[in-house]
Amino acid sequence: MNSFSQDNLFKALGQRIRAIRLSKGLRQKAVIEKGEFHKGSYSDIEAGRRNVSLLTLYKIAFALEEPITSFFDDNEFYDFLKKFNEI
Amino acid sequence: MNSFSQDNLFKALGQRIRAIRLSKGLRQKAVIEKGEFHKGSYSDIEAGRRNVSLLTLYKIAFALEEPITSFFDDNEFYDFLKKFNEI
Repeated sequence: MNSFSQDNLFKALGQRIRAIRLSKGLRQKAVIEKGEFHKGSYSDIEAGRRNVSLLTLYKIAFALEEPITSFFDDNEFYDFLKKFNEI
Repeated sequence: MNSFSQDNLFKALGQRIRAIRLSKGLRQKAVIEKGEFHKGSYSDIEAGRRNVSLLTLYKIAFALEEPITSFFDDNEFYDFLKKFNEI
């Protein structure tokens, strides 16, 4: 499991969430209000500075009206798994 | 966001993870060892007793060799969203 770079996982999630938000023309403020996030915590998530919880993922999904599955890339995961199993 | 029942969210995740594990003929012990989980914490996840973190979701995905997207049901999410927006 050491091959996982935590920072990269958090950043990948943050980047996808940010991209979804922007594609919907939403400001952070709107998402923070709808999801009832603490000030600063949502921007930390988009910046990849937090190990979010399942409950937070659901809150983001609710605020963005996008399912949690949109936040992850299966191909990326299988690429990782393939590389890991080759080691 | 009060309409979210945390317990139900945790249980839904645990049930899906358990179903995936069983479909692969894996024992909890094997998943705990591969994912390097603390004893008891993995069984708590399957039982829906924990608000898991993103990092833990990745560890489970790695141990089960199934992407995180397999742990969530988009239709269920859209049904929830539809009901919520009707209120």
